[in-house]
Amino acid sequence: MSAKSMILGAMIFYPGGEHLASWRLPGAQPERYLDLGYYRDFARTAERGGFATAFVADELYVWDRYRSGIDHVVNTRLEPFTLLGALSQVTEQIGLAATVSTTYNEPYHIARKLASLDFLSEGRAGWNVVTSASNEEAWNFGRDANLDHEVRYRRAAEFIDVVNGLWDSWEDGALRHDKESGYFADASKVHRLDHRGEFFTVRGPLNIVRPPQGRPVIFQAGASEAGRALAGATAEAVFTLDGGGLKGSQALYDDYKARARANGRDPDHLKVLPALSPVVGQTKREAEEYLDLIEELTPDRLSLDWLSHYLEFDVSEFAMDEPFRPDLSVPTNQVQSVFERIRKVAGDGTLTLREINRLLLRNRFLVGTPDRIADWMTRRFTNGAADGFMLAFSSIPVGIEQFVELVVPELTKRGVYTGEYRGSTHRENLGLPTPPSRYS
Amino acid sequence: MSAKSMILGAMIFYPGGEHLASWRLPGAQPERYLDLGYYRDFARTAERGGFATAFVADELYVWDRYRSGIDHVVNTRLEPFTLLGALSQVTEQIGLAATVSTTYNEPYHIARKLASLDFLSEGRAGWNVVTSASNEEAWNFGRDANLDHEVRYRRAAEFIDVVNGLWDSWEDGALRHDKESGYFADASKVHRLDHRGEFFTVRGPLNIVRPPQGRPVIFQAGASEAGRALAGATAEAVFTLDGGGLKGSQALYDDYKARARANGRDPDHLKVLPALSPVVGQTKREAEEYLDLIEELTPDRLSLDWLSHYLEFDVSEFAMDEPFRPDLSVPTNQVQSVFERIRKVAGDGTLTLREINRLLLRNRFLVGTPDRIADWMTRRFTNGAADGFMLAFSSIPVGIEQFVELVVPELTKRGVYTGEYRGSTHRENLGLPTPPSRYS
Repeated sequence: MSAKSMILGAMIFYPGGEHLASWRLPGAQPERYLDLGYYRDFARTAERGGFATAFVADELYVWDRYRSGIDHVVNTRLEPFTLLGALSQVTEQIGLAATVSTTYNEPYHIARKLASLDFLSEGRAGWNVVTSASNEEAWNFGRDANLDHEVRYRRAAEFIDVVNGLWDSWEDGALRHDKESGYFADASKVHRLDHRGEFFTVRGPLNIVRPPQGRPVIFQAGASEAGRALAGATAEAVFTLDGGGLKGSQALYDDYKARARANGRDPDHLKVLPALSPVVGQTKREAEEYLDLIEELTPDRLSLDWLSHYLEFDVSEFAMDEPFRPDLSVPTNQVQSVFERIRKVAGDGTLTLREINRLLLRNRFLVGTPDRIADWMTRRFTNGAADGFMLAFSSIPVGIEQFVELVVPELTKRGVYTGEYRGSTHRENLGLPTPPSRYS
Repeated sequence: MSAKSMILGAMIFYPGGEHLASWRLPGAQPERYLDLGYYRDFARTAERGGFATAFVADELYVWDRYRSGIDHVVNTRLEPFTLLGALSQVTEQIGLAATVSTTYNEPYHIARKLASLDFLSEGRAGWNVVTSASNEEAWNFGRDANLDHEVRYRRAAEFIDVVNGLWDSWEDGALRHDKESGYFADASKVHRLDHRGEFFTVRGPLNIVRPPQGRPVIFQAGASEAGRALAGATAEAVFTLDGGGLKGSQALYDDYKARARANGRDPDHLKVLPALSPVVGQTKREAEEYLDLIEELTPDRLSLDWLSHYLEFDVSEFAMDEPFRPDLSVPTNQVQSVFERIRKVAGDGTLTLREINRLLLRNRFLVGTPDRIADWMTRRFTNGAADGFMLAFSSIPVGIEQFVELVVPELTKRGVYTGEYRGSTHRENLGLPTPPSRYS
């Protein structure tokens, strides 16, 4: 029994769920992916389960490098801030985190949007900092190619620094709105930023005052060296891929905490939340059959093209049933953690493409009864491998409804989760302090 | 009696109202300017009055060129898309128009946000295209100075073209979401844009399908030659400054309609909506006293600094009570219509700075009883000078509540306004057709 409660977050990766074929699963509602009601239902179910965060992933392009991307994938998404602005009015307690590319945005706009969302939601805003990894995104924003991995992380770090600076540009108490004297603000408490850096020149001040949470919560998922370094310096919650067994996850957990400490931060103020995709069944067999169904609903061609995307060469020219021996010695400019996942499975060159696709798909899911899932989560949580979990459901709404009805009670029973909100802001519900203004 | 109904729009210029000192007026609620409830109340009052559009102005900086801008002006604003996303959930019928700078934004982001807002509001989105005119904005976005007037209008034209193209990138019916076959979309109905222009290179397709209205409604306010040319080619509603008497307004109205016609458009599909700031009183005297109060609550220094801003030199060094004779022969790079307004008042060099300030303030308002205001509006509407009006209230919420309670019934009585929504989309309520996709 732990005195602390784990943190749960609920992610919408693709509108249909975590997997490319989630939208085909029973109960999926693809005709609702552009309706607010679909996301409202998701967020309210998450609130019923006491989730601290509802999190929307984002990309800035249509995945059309291969034809299967248009044919078989949900390539249409509501823009996160417009969506979360709307969600702020139909939810009560859950944190609302928007994915923001630091490569294709301007910090002044983003600081404003996040501050606005924080006001509209009364302190429930968060942002997931991503750097964008696909050339298709570059081509929508006037660039020839995506930035190199190192460069985009340097840009991300500067971006966060500027946004934090802009949020501080009005001191607490700078607004007087004194109708009698005619003074709306106290000019001595309003500051320019005058930032001049490698990527951005931003004068400030921001045209909105410091948001209710001081700073909306910063999430990250970077797992590469550059990604972890950035997280150690600036993130308040990271969602990680599975570290490979309990020991691997503990090592990953310790690594993030050590990086926070090395930056002079309290390691408890960097929450480590492994991503978790449960496939739940009333029996083990029912769960396994569900996983089989996910596999069956995923066209071979789509799996191949997904692999080609992350390897940056077209694997469809290779035979499906012969050993696949790509050269994986040089990392791509794509998402590093996905590349590593592929290398782990395909690295020794003994498996066929078909087997590799199968493992890559199946390894993403934790399959079992509510009891088994809850045990697995409890073990990670109580053994220093997780402060909580970021749930990426195999299918929406069925996956989250099942989880809230079947797994949450098991977690509560084990004393590792209260299922209740401890405060009213996103920070309070994540157990994070409110950062003071640089001027306070 | 006219068979048609005039169109009314309700604008939030500054959060407190149209004027720099609106927030000081009786009933103003400056402590609520960052609360959604304030804007919800505004929009619902407008819905009660049958307004087609709720419109939020925007700027991308804090007006701190002069100290009075911080001291006396409401310089804090919620970001329009986040705000309107939220408003979409607490309103039912009114159109929601966001101001967008084409100078400091990327068309891919804006096309997506507007499409998202259109889905979230079920067909009620609109956008007000502005080009941004202040160096302070440039300095927040890594530029040394604002673009020249001509350049920013060229950029705006290309921006609109790209956004329209992106909205068409998914043909109507491109989504199949056929769970059985596994086809989410029909690739033959999804198109790249492959735009390469002077300012933008955008490949597409957009990652959201064609919005419910086909295209959210395009508003503009440009009054310069370049602004009018852009409106004639692309705008569906313009809000204009007063043309100077009925004849001047008719000429302005005819000019916009002729420009639409010259672009091969139906002139009825470009609505001309003069901006109107009523100051309403139960008696003429009551209204005039209210105008005196607005003047009294506006610090001299603020009026001077406002003038300096638009003239691009500091007028505070000139004596208040001597004739003011600035060289106004060369237009500034600021908003041209405001410059013209100043030139009209100050041009002959006989008035003092104090008198000029006074006229510039007072000329903005239409002062009188509900009866007089309604007569004035009816005369313009029935004599080919306006398709309706964009109301910029002297104070919020008092100004809009008064207008809906006192003036709307007078308009209805005169048979020029039904006060009812004729359809469910923003376009339907403005009397605009749904543009077909380029692929239909």
